[in-house]
Amino acid sequence: MSDVNRQWQLAARPSGFPKETDFVLAEGALPEPGDGQFVVKAEFWSVDPYMRGRMNDEVSYSPPVALGGVMVGSAVGRVVASKHPDYAVGDTVCGGVGWQEYGLTTGGGFEKVDENRAPLSAFLGVLGMPGLTAYFGFLDICEPKEGDTVFVSGAAGAVGALVGQLGKIRGCRVVGSAGTDEKCHHLIEECGYDAAFNYKTDPDFLAIILELCPDGIDCYFDNVGGAMTDAVLMSINDYARLSICGQISQYNLEKPAEGPRLFRQLLIHQAKMEGFLVVRWLDRLEEGRRQMSQWVQEGKIKYREDVVEGFANMPKAFIRMLRGENKGKQVVKA
Amino acid sequence: MSDVNRQWQLAARPSGFPKETDFVLAEGALPEPGDGQFVVKAEFWSVDPYMRGRMNDEVSYSPPVALGGVMVGSAVGRVVASKHPDYAVGDTVCGGVGWQEYGLTTGGGFEKVDENRAPLSAFLGVLGMPGLTAYFGFLDICEPKEGDTVFVSGAAGAVGALVGQLGKIRGCRVVGSAGTDEKCHHLIEECGYDAAFNYKTDPDFLAIILELCPDGIDCYFDNVGGAMTDAVLMSINDYARLSICGQISQYNLEKPAEGPRLFRQLLIHQAKMEGFLVVRWLDRLEEGRRQMSQWVQEGKIKYREDVVEGFANMPKAFIRMLRGENKGKQVVKA
Repeated sequence: MSDVNRQWQLAARPSGFPKETDFVLAEGALPEPGDGQFVVKAEFWSVDPYMRGRMNDEVSYSPPVALGGVMVGSAVGRVVASKHPDYAVGDTVCGGVGWQEYGLTTGGGFEKVDENRAPLSAFLGVLGMPGLTAYFGFLDICEPKEGDTVFVSGAAGAVGALVGQLGKIRGCRVVGSAGTDEKCHHLIEECGYDAAFNYKTDPDFLAIILELCPDGIDCYFDNVGGAMTDAVLMSINDYARLSICGQISQYNLEKPAEGPRLFRQLLIHQAKMEGFLVVRWLDRLEEGRRQMSQWVQEGKIKYREDVVEGFANMPKAFIRMLRGENKGKQVVKA
Repeated sequence: MSDVNRQWQLAARPSGFPKETDFVLAEGALPEPGDGQFVVKAEFWSVDPYMRGRMNDEVSYSPPVALGGVMVGSAVGRVVASKHPDYAVGDTVCGGVGWQEYGLTTGGGFEKVDENRAPLSAFLGVLGMPGLTAYFGFLDICEPKEGDTVFVSGAAGAVGALVGQLGKIRGCRVVGSAGTDEKCHHLIEECGYDAAFNYKTDPDFLAIILELCPDGIDCYFDNVGGAMTDAVLMSINDYARLSICGQISQYNLEKPAEGPRLFRQLLIHQAKMEGFLVVRWLDRLEEGRRQMSQWVQEGKIKYREDVVEGFANMPKAFIRMLRGENKGKQVVKA
């Protein structure tokens, strides 16, 4: 056990796309647990799109990270010191460690995870927040029915790749957009997507969506927003359900982009669009985890991870994920 | 009974705001009922915002009116000739007569109305499509709860004035926007609105909404769209419900206007936005009519009508309604 606790702090609020210099690596003291506390040594950290929002000083569902504060985020790891009655040294846990090697906590927002159920890193992906986001945000809001056409933007991301597979489990036609040919290939070959297109080389979104979704779109799971959503709105069927999970195309803009006003499409198709955060289903997380875990075991859901080695590379991993250069759920290994 | 059937036909597809010359008054032959048909002589016609959409040659929930075709629309009137087993001469009915003095029908989309229940014209307003639109589109989609703040755009329109009163019945704070001080006064004094503002003299929608809705917006009933919806999206509370009934600010544009992309607001507030057409509740219309009728009798719902005299003035009445110059539900009296 080291005697320092390396931390990535927010050094500057990014203007537009984040840079590595927006973060600074600092060394804190190794935390000591007080009564009712324990210390977690992280083995894998998650980097996720939502973290971009926390870097801005603006109103959102959570307060921003303070300048000089440790970046927020989840990690899985092992308890290395404990004065908490429910957590013993050696327990494997998942929770909000933040971008640091050691996290001190009273246990709020942490849970034990079972290494025998899945490799630890899976609790940051298919069995963690991204998996539960896909499970609840798609199944509960889009209510996919057999024969529906499902369109997923950002389909090769940690959440999107799972949503498509859930759509197939429900008997839907599933189409997605992603940022490289390799990702599209992966979606079709490994995730069971019926079709996928590369939005960088197929910039006429409406034309390609109409071609790949000849019966129109019944369910939209949106990670991206912007012009992709415009094209989807022009392709929806009556009573379509649109679930807004993310708007990654908008996160690095200095102010809201402008686009065509298309709410009339919701009106004439009697469609529903709903945003969500996975915390909405806090009382049902175990249901989701159990079901996702079962589908993984049955081979009905596959996942892949993109592992960056070394805590020192967290900003690199985060930026590469925002750029869509990752292949599968982006994690950082200690 | 006259021996001609005057009709307003669509003469030209409007570019932007409709003009009287987009319509032409023609004289058809008086229709004769065949077996299973009857003829209705209209006493009151309705003019409604949705008719603007039917004048365009574009995809919508209903096909456009053909050039040279009779404009579509509802009227109340009396059966003057019948070979239909269920309709006798003298029956009062409501249905899709169109912009003409006499309508020939097999009865599809028509229903008998009871003159003893309310004056005939009420079946085009509070007990007709606008009333049922308010009843179902607000209560079913916005699900107002006691203490909620409800914001209604186009609040002085045939639908909006009723929505606010439904909000008061449900124990909500109700705020609306309208286009004249007189209308705002009417909303507050007659319809029980807690506050209203004139969007023409108060152009900073966000500032005035934040002032009049200090606790944020829980329910939005939208007749207008455009910049008003932008301001509402910046003012919604978590789990807000937004019902899209109309987009009248957009109907006379040649192509969709541009505006800020604000779907992130739905995301961070986990809000739901849903469009609807009243036909969705076709199997529950009588429930709505009975309840609205009861509230009218109890004095809990008030309504006003703006009557233009003379079939010859239908285009004038339609255009004046689109301009918001009407005070109350716009109807035309034969």
